[in-house]
Amino acid sequence: VSSESLSQKKTSFNDTQSEYKTLIVTKEDNITKIMLNRPSQKNAINIQMYKDITLALEAAEKDDSSLTVITGNGEYYSSGNDLSEPLKIPPDEIQKKLEENMQILRTFIDHFIDFSKPLVALVNGPAIGISVTLLGLFDIVYATDRATFHTPFIHLGLCPEACSSFTFPKIMGSVKAAEILIFGRKLTAQEAYARGLVTEVFPESTFQKEVWTRLKAYSQLPPVSMKKSKQLIRSFEKETLHRVNLEECNLLQTRFTSDECLNAIVNFLNRKSKL
Amino acid sequence: VSSESLSQKKTSFNDTQSEYKTLIVTKEDNITKIMLNRPSQKNAINIQMYKDITLALEAAEKDDSSLTVITGNGEYYSSGNDLSEPLKIPPDEIQKKLEENMQILRTFIDHFIDFSKPLVALVNGPAIGISVTLLGLFDIVYATDRATFHTPFIHLGLCPEACSSFTFPKIMGSVKAAEILIFGRKLTAQEAYARGLVTEVFPESTFQKEVWTRLKAYSQLPPVSMKKSKQLIRSFEKETLHRVNLEECNLLQTRFTSDECLNAIVNFLNRKSKL
Amino acid sequence: VSSESLSQKKTSFNDTQSEYKTLIVTKEDNITKIMLNRPSQKNAINIQMYKDITLALEAAEKDDSSLTVITGNGEYYSSGNDLSEPLKIPPDEIQKKLEENMQILRTFIDHFIDFSKPLVALVNGPAIGISVTLLGLFDIVYATDRATFHTPFIHLGLCPEACSSFTFPKIMGSVKAAEILIFGRKLTAQEAYARGLVTEVFPESTFQKEVWTRLKAYSQLPPVSMKKSKQLIRSFEKETLHRVNLEECNLLQTRFTSDECLNAIVNFLNRKSKL
Repeated sequence: VSSESLSQKKTSFNDTQSEYKTLIVTKEDNITKIMLNRPSQKNAINIQMYKDITLALEAAEKDDSSLTVITGNGEYYSSGNDLSEPLKIPPDEIQKKLEENMQILRTFIDHFIDFSKPLVALVNGPAIGISVTLLGLFDIVYATDRATFHTPFIHLGLCPEACSSFTFPKIMGSVKAAEILIFGRKLTAQEAYARGLVTEVFPESTFQKEVWTRLKAYSQLPPVSMKKSKQLIRSFEKETLHRVNLEECNLLQTRFTSDECLNAIVNFLNRKSKL
Repeated sequence: VSSESLSQKKTSFNDTQSEYKTLIVTKEDNITKIMLNRPSQKNAINIQMYKDITLALEAAEKDDSSLTVITGNGEYYSSGNDLSEPLKIPPDEIQKKLEENMQILRTFIDHFIDFSKPLVALVNGPAIGISVTLLGLFDIVYATDRATFHTPFIHLGLCPEACSSFTFPKIMGSVKAAEILIFGRKLTAQEAYARGLVTEVFPESTFQKEVWTRLKAYSQLPPVSMKKSKQLIRSFEKETLHRVNLEECNLLQTRFTSDECLNAIVNFLNRKSKL
Repeated sequence: VSSESLSQKKTSFNDTQSEYKTLIVTKEDNITKIMLNRPSQKNAINIQMYKDITLALEAAEKDDSSLTVITGNGEYYSSGNDLSEPLKIPPDEIQKKLEENMQILRTFIDHFIDFSKPLVALVNGPAIGISVTLLGLFDIVYATDRATFHTPFIHLGLCPEACSSFTFPKIMGSVKAAEILIFGRKLTAQEAYARGLVTEVFPESTFQKEVWTRLKAYSQLPPVSMKKSKQLIRSFEKETLHRVNLEECNLLQTRFTSDECLNAIVNFLNRKSKL
C-alpha cells in the first residue's frame, strides 16, 4: 500500500494498484474491489480508513466498473469503529476533534446512501458495529458461515448509526431490529440471513470461489440498466436516509461525551489491556 | 388491588404496591412490571383498564426504571377489548358514550406510540384483538409456546387498530399482514415469530425463568443510551403513527355503529351465553 | 370469449358470461374471477390484455362481489409482458406507440393501486415479469408448489415496474429485493413464501380445491368491513405508490429505446426462434 498524498493519489489512480493507506483497491472483470486492509487490527475503521473508503467510493462511482465490492483482508470483515483513537486526543481538543470526526463519519455514510451502482458486501468473517449497520445500504450481502454480526452500541453507551435506526426496522421489523440495535444480541450468519440482512450464506471452504463466480456473472449484465434500477429502488428513501444520517450523527456526538459512554469505553479498554 | 380514587393514587404511588383497579404494578431491578389483572375475564380490557394502563405508562415514564414490561395474570395474556361493555349502555347514550370511549382508546394508543423507554411484552398465553395489534409498538415481545395471536376484527364487522394497519405490513409485508388483519387467521407463537411479530418463543415450562433472566441483564445496560436509541429508532415514524391512530379510530367509530358490527356482536354474545 | 366491441361490452356486461378478448371473467359466491386466457402464449400480457384487465377491475369495483381473484388459464400464471408486440411496429411510429403503451401500462397499474376490495392472486403456475411485480399490490397470494417467480428485467436491459421498486424492499428488505429485481434470481414457490411475497403454498394436486374452499369462506365475511379495512391499510402508502408508478414508467420508457434493451430483446427473440 503506498503512502502517497491525497493530491498525488488523485492524479495517479489506476486500475490494478492501490494507493490507499488502509485499503487495497483493485479492478477486474467490471468489478471494483475495496478491501479493508488493517488485518492486524481486525480491520478496525480509523479516521484514515473512513477517509480512504470515502475516496475509494468516489473513484468507483466514476470508473467503468459495473459492481463495487467491499470486503476485509484476513480473518475479520471489520471490528467496527476504532475505539482506541479518541483516547489519544488531548482533553482540551476533544470537542473540536469530535465535531471534525462526526463530519467525516457523516460524509462517509452519505457516500453509501448516494452510491449509484450495485454495492456488494463480502462478509468474510466477524462484523462488528458500523460494519454491520452499513449493510442496510448494500444491494448484495454474501456471508461466510463463519461470519457473526454484532452491534454492542448500548453496552458502550452509544447509539445506532449508518441509517440502521431506519433500515433495520424496515428490513426485519421493529422487535428483531431492537434486539440487535438496542440490546446488542450477536447474530450468526444464518440468523442474519433469516432476518433479511444477508442475501446468502456460503460454507467457509467454498465462500470465495462461489461468490466470485456469481459476481462475475452479474458483472456482465447491462450496466446502465443495473445502475438505473438501483437508483430507482433507492430514490424513494434517499431523502429520508440523509435526514436519518444527520439525526444519528447528532445523537452520537452527544453520546460520545456522555458519562455512560466514557465509563463504558474506559472499562472496555481496561478489560482489553488485561487480556 | 386497591380501589383508591385517581387523586389519591397520584399522591400515594410507590414502588411495590399497586393502586390500580385492573392492574398490578410493581418495580424491581430497574424494571417496572404492569400486569393485567382481570384473570377471571381473561384480562379483557374494559374502559377502566384502558385508563389504568394509560396512567401506569405515564408513571413508568417518570420513574427511575429502565425497562417497562406488560404481561397478563393467569392463563391469558389478554382477550382484547371487553365486548360486553357497550351493551350495558342505554340506547340514547350510545353515540355520546362511543365518542368518549374512542377518545380514551386513542389516548391509550398514543401513550404506546410516545413511550420513550424500551417496552417489553411478555405474552404469557393467548392474545386476542388489541392485545395483538399493540405488539407492533413494542421493542421486545417474548412469548410462551402456549401463546396464540388472533385478530378477528372483520368477523365482528370491525377494523384493525393500535396502528397495526401501518405496523403489521411494515413488519411482515402486505399479504402476511392482510391474512391476519383482514381474514382473521389465528397464529401460533412460532408463526408469529416467523412473521417478525415476536422476538423469541420459549417453552411454557421455562418461560418465566428465562425471560426474567434476560430482562434483568438488559435492565443493567446504560439507561440513557437505551432510551435515546429507542427514541431515535421510533422518531422517523412517530408523526405517521399518530396520524394512523387517528384514522383508525375514526373508522372504528363508524364501524361500531354499522349493522355488520351490531349483528356480529349480538351473534357473538348469543353464542357465548349458550355455552 | 366474445369479440364484441368495447361499447357493446359496457352495456351487455353480466355475471356469468365473459366479453373480453383475452380474459374469462365469471362471478360466483360473492367472488369475481378474472382468468387470463391466452394459454397458448403462456398468458403473455399484450396491449389488449392490459386494457381488458383494466376494464375488468373497473367492473369488479362496481359489482356486488366481496373478493376479486386473478388467475391464469392453463399451465402458466403469466409469462409477463408480450415482448413480440413492440417488434411489429413500423420504426417511424415507435416513439408515439411507446408513449401510448406506457400510458396504458401506467393506467393498468394505477387500477391495482386503487382497487378497493381485497384482491387475490391464484398463482397456478410459473409467473414472469410484471405478473410477479404486481403481486406486491395484492392482499392474498396463493401459489401452487409448481409456481416459480422470475423477473429478468436487467437481462433485457429494462427496470422494475408495477411499484415493485417500492413494494418489494418493503416486503422482504433491500438485499432480498435486489436479488430478484436487479439480478433476476428466479424463486421457487417456497422461496417466494419465505420472502413474504406469497401468503401460502399448496401442493399442485390439491391447489384448486384448497384455495377455493378458503376463498369461499372469506367471501362470506362482512363485505364493508373487509373493504374499509383494506382501504385503511393501503391508504398510508397510496400517494407514494402512484408516484412510484409514474417514476417507474418514465424510466421504463427511456429503457425501452436504449441500446441495452434493443440488443437484449433481439437476442432473446433470436434464441427463442431457434428453439
